[in-house]
Amino acid sequence: MSQERAALIPVLHNIATRLRIDSIRATTAAGSGHPTTCMSAADLTAALFFAEMRFDPQNPRHPHNDRFVLSKGHAAPLLYAAWSAVGFIERDDLLTLRQLTSSLEGHPTPRLPFVDVATGSRGQGLAAGIGIALNARRIGSGYRTYVLMGDGETAEGSVWEAAESGAHFGLDNLVGITDVNRLGQSRPTIWQHDLEALARRWRGFGWHTIIIDGHDLNAILDAFAEARATRGRPTMILARTFKGYGVSFLQDQDNWHGKPLKPGEQTDKAIAELERTLHPLPEDAIDRLRAAIPRPEAPDLPAPRRPEVPPPSYTLGEMVATREAYGTALARIGQLDDRIVALDADVGNSTFSERFEKVAPGRFYEFYIAEQVMLGAAMGLAARGALPFPSTFACFLTRAYDFIRMAAISDLNVKIAGSHAGVSIGEDGPSQMALEDLAMVRAQPNFTVLYPCDAVSAERCVELAAYHPGPVYIRTSRPKTPVIYEANEPFAIGGSKVLRQSEADEAVVVAAGVTVFEALKAFDQLAAEGIAIRVIDAYSVQPIDATTLREAARAVSGRVITVEDHYAAGGLGDAVASALASDGHAVHRLAVREIPRSGRPEELLDRFGISAAHIVGAVRELVGKVQA
Amino acid sequence: MSQERAALIPVLHNIATRLRIDSIRATTAAGSGHPTTCMSAADLTAALFFAEMRFDPQNPRHPHNDRFVLSKGHAAPLLYAAWSAVGFIERDDLLTLRQLTSSLEGHPTPRLPFVDVATGSRGQGLAAGIGIALNARRIGSGYRTYVLMGDGETAEGSVWEAAESGAHFGLDNLVGITDVNRLGQSRPTIWQHDLEALARRWRGFGWHTIIIDGHDLNAILDAFAEARATRGRPTMILARTFKGYGVSFLQDQDNWHGKPLKPGEQTDKAIAELERTLHPLPEDAIDRLRAAIPRPEAPDLPAPRRPEVPPPSYTLGEMVATREAYGTALARIGQLDDRIVALDADVGNSTFSERFEKVAPGRFYEFYIAEQVMLGAAMGLAARGALPFPSTFACFLTRAYDFIRMAAISDLNVKIAGSHAGVSIGEDGPSQMALEDLAMVRAQPNFTVLYPCDAVSAERCVELAAYHPGPVYIRTSRPKTPVIYEANEPFAIGGSKVLRQSEADEAVVVAAGVTVFEALKAFDQLAAEGIAIRVIDAYSVQPIDATTLREAARAVSGRVITVEDHYAAGGLGDAVASALASDGHAVHRLAVREIPRSGRPEELLDRFGISAAHIVGAVRELVGKVQA
Repeated sequence: MSQERAALIPVLHNIATRLRIDSIRATTAAGSGHPTTCMSAADLTAALFFAEMRFDPQNPRHPHNDRFVLSKGHAAPLLYAAWSAVGFIERDDLLTLRQLTSSLEGHPTPRLPFVDVATGSRGQGLAAGIGIALNARRIGSGYRTYVLMGDGETAEGSVWEAAESGAHFGLDNLVGITDVNRLGQSRPTIWQHDLEALARRWRGFGWHTIIIDGHDLNAILDAFAEARATRGRPTMILARTFKGYGVSFLQDQDNWHGKPLKPGEQTDKAIAELERTLHPLPEDAIDRLRAAIPRPEAPDLPAPRRPEVPPPSYTLGEMVATREAYGTALARIGQLDDRIVALDADVGNSTFSERFEKVAPGRFYEFYIAEQVMLGAAMGLAARGALPFPSTFACFLTRAYDFIRMAAISDLNVKIAGSHAGVSIGEDGPSQMALEDLAMVRAQPNFTVLYPCDAVSAERCVELAAYHPGPVYIRTSRPKTPVIYEANEPFAIGGSKVLRQSEADEAVVVAAGVTVFEALKAFDQLAAEGIAIRVIDAYSVQPIDATTLREAARAVSGRVITVEDHYAAGGLGDAVASALASDGHAVHRLAVREIPRSGRPEELLDRFGISAAHIVGAVRELVGKVQA
Repeated sequence: MSQERAALIPVLHNIATRLRIDSIRATTAAGSGHPTTCMSAADLTAALFFAEMRFDPQNPRHPHNDRFVLSKGHAAPLLYAAWSAVGFIERDDLLTLRQLTSSLEGHPTPRLPFVDVATGSRGQGLAAGIGIALNARRIGSGYRTYVLMGDGETAEGSVWEAAESGAHFGLDNLVGITDVNRLGQSRPTIWQHDLEALARRWRGFGWHTIIIDGHDLNAILDAFAEARATRGRPTMILARTFKGYGVSFLQDQDNWHGKPLKPGEQTDKAIAELERTLHPLPEDAIDRLRAAIPRPEAPDLPAPRRPEVPPPSYTLGEMVATREAYGTALARIGQLDDRIVALDADVGNSTFSERFEKVAPGRFYEFYIAEQVMLGAAMGLAARGALPFPSTFACFLTRAYDFIRMAAISDLNVKIAGSHAGVSIGEDGPSQMALEDLAMVRAQPNFTVLYPCDAVSAERCVELAAYHPGPVYIRTSRPKTPVIYEANEPFAIGGSKVLRQSEADEAVVVAAGVTVFEALKAFDQLAAEGIAIRVIDAYSVQPIDATTLREAARAVSGRVITVEDHYAAGGLGDAVASALASDGHAVHRLAVREIPRSGRPEELLDRFGISAAHIVGAVRELVGKVQA
């Protein structure tokens, strides 16, 4: 051991001890939380923050800072204690943990500038780390990414999707650290302290893998150095640790998961035990180490600029699938703005994201059939300034719903595109039909949801998505549909288009996507019978154009019909009903009401109640003109 | 090679060739589908059906049949061809593939008696196979389970959750077969024909792993024998194959994924090529092999019986969390019916499924933190006659939404329980709060959704779930709530309870779960002001008690308020609004309308707009009696 290293170790030990004490104090004050989970990872964290990472402690958002992702989010008090130790958080503020008025929440969220993605749902951090590490390549930065994981969360499949992607991309700027403390929530983990078993898995997936004693600060520093020297693949450090390390009655004990210590004697005893291990050091030893934290090498990035995007080019009546227009727009806009990146799950030839791949191969990331890491990586990329468009069949986004949920909690700039929506995909059958995707994304209150019906609106929706802050979902369809909008037609989030309208309107039909064309067919057929209807294209499903809808509903005395290629709950019908509720108007909903099956698209639209014929029937009934 | 084996091989080759030809014919007739994906796996499938599996070809549902799960569901025509070759499907019927009137859908569904779980969403079959293999243990059967996977789907994390569980449970009655045909949908797979790379992963996860040439029938049979002889762990057979094998212009060619051959010359040429490889054999060679398929060893199981379940035992006013009552009921009913099994994701001490573990450890399956395989295994267990209750925090069920979707398509008897719903969990913060779970499950049209508010109704909901056919979701809460129902109070799917009612009611408040108690508090407060309200506990959220709701709405001239610990879209409010739409009544919804944060439960109910105070305010406004 060098002399410098020998002098460093006792300082790091004292810092780690402070992190343990602060974690205990904060959780005791809160009356809830996971102190023992913090204690197992305190040595790893102290070493990372004070002897490995390059970052500006007073500017956690600096684009060239090394990044730290706390995948084991329940160790939040440890994270807050670390940012306190480097001087960003007042030590007293740590005691506000978990209070309604505090940003120091039970699990970390990006309300805090040093948190890139919210964690707390297990097994997501490494996927986000993939995106953060890819972003370093995108901006040509030397920053490194460190992800601290729990051993228990290693059981999540998302971790192995990330493992595969990390190796595939050869991310040697990414380091995973597993805090193998042996104990899960309800029982010991599968592997307990068999670190070789875990190592076989990581080596099998192509990672450079190092096993260490996670309480041996010297071994920890050596492992970080070895990871830094490793080229062409990511490193996983498997650290053997003990939950509650350093306190005799907590260490490696069952039934201490997620439990704070009792205030008074129990807490005092634990802290006293920890304090007894402190090395006598000069008073400014920690201050000097803090001051020596290496700052990022490069200056801040220039402010991003939104490019002027020329209008799309189609002719009216041209038959183009919205999924294809999505790909065209992504390529077109992506060429103008290098923040835009595309992420695929081996369906780029169906979602047409392959068009982006052709023009910007360096910003196209292939995740193969692994939707969770695709979404997680998009979250990581978005957190670091990219504008990521992950896309796949809309039905397969259900695979990543927990990531979508956490992206919403993180309020990240992810622009998710789901193609092949609804029964209109036809013969492939229900497993390939998204009929719950609108329910899934609409439930998230900060998600914008767009559902274009033609190529022009689809292209405009891509542009709207790219430059609207926050998470956005774009739903596209498989069948070719006619272009109905002029290239310079304006679209807006929260907008809609009234496609047919007259003074004589007796009912309103609100449609989106493929059902717009069923509504237009119904309009023609009803017109021939002398019944006038208003037809609205509600391409912005969330927020929905309440003003236009309410005005239309009033004009027809509340006779409003919605029609959607989606299940009945949670989709367009519910969105319109919510918008009209305050006026006391109810909504008649046409939607898919049972599990569908294979068949031709037009057959299925009719069989499952959302074709022009069904619209005509519903209008006739509502206006009291049912034909014999 | 034995003489017997030498005689077998050419017959199997001819069968495999027939499977290829039938797959081509069917997809050509359909005008869509994945012929080349079928062709790579035809030798494996022919060998399985005619020289490995023990089953009754005329009784695919026999409980002791060996099971075959086609995880690579897009090879459906191959599956149908195999069941035709064994005599269960008429060969001519294969040409109805993908037609609306045919059960031979684009991807397999349990409309067909030989399909246990719908497939087509990649990477689910092995998880289902875990459940099917566990079920063999449950019923003491010697049946074996074979799962045929694609190589591309190996990228899905769910596959590695299943890998971990299969090894953990030591399932030597489970065989995975990966058809490593090198080509994904949009490009070659990550590993292409590097079978050693795949083998490292499976070996790392503890599986016995065999690499073979997947077109060498002798090697295939040897691998099956080796798997059969392997004890204490599952086997993965990695088979090197070629997409489109046997036809020169298809084999190992790009851009043939998901494309049928053109009718006429192209199809004829392919079939002619395949036919030229047929061995001259006695006409009855295949018939004799078919007749020799070994039948299941044991007779059918006795018909299951529903036990008499005694009422729960609580006293009115007792404080019990619904999640705790869930665990109590599961243990109580589970002791009376050995079809009931419980599946956990390392939170059994929070969901209280640990109570079931204590009384029936042999039917309690621990999946650690791996929700996808937990759900997939539940699907497999349900498909084979068990009544599985997978449970975890409701928010983490989002991780398995694609499995929930496929369980709905499969219409399986899974009884999913999600605990810790809503902001009422308090300090742990948004990552641990389920606020979209009702939207997620309600979207599925065949899901029953139950949301009890007290211990008695929670126990009854478990019983209702167990014996109601089809998928069910039970939502439970973290806080203790008072028992408000007598032990013998009856509950029903589609029912509700009117808790407060009078002739003078001016508004109706519909609540469920924790908000029932907020509504009761609001009732008291409003009563003191002279405003009478009706309070309804809508414990059956789907189907909802439309009759009671409509009657109540009429009684108060449509002044209906819903209040739920859930986001505004897709939950109770939308359910009630849908039920009242046909009467023209709109609904005023109180729900969580932004991303929440950490805090005390009662603080959060108020901060996010669903406390008694908010109900009081909404009622006052609706009845036009706003106080100064």
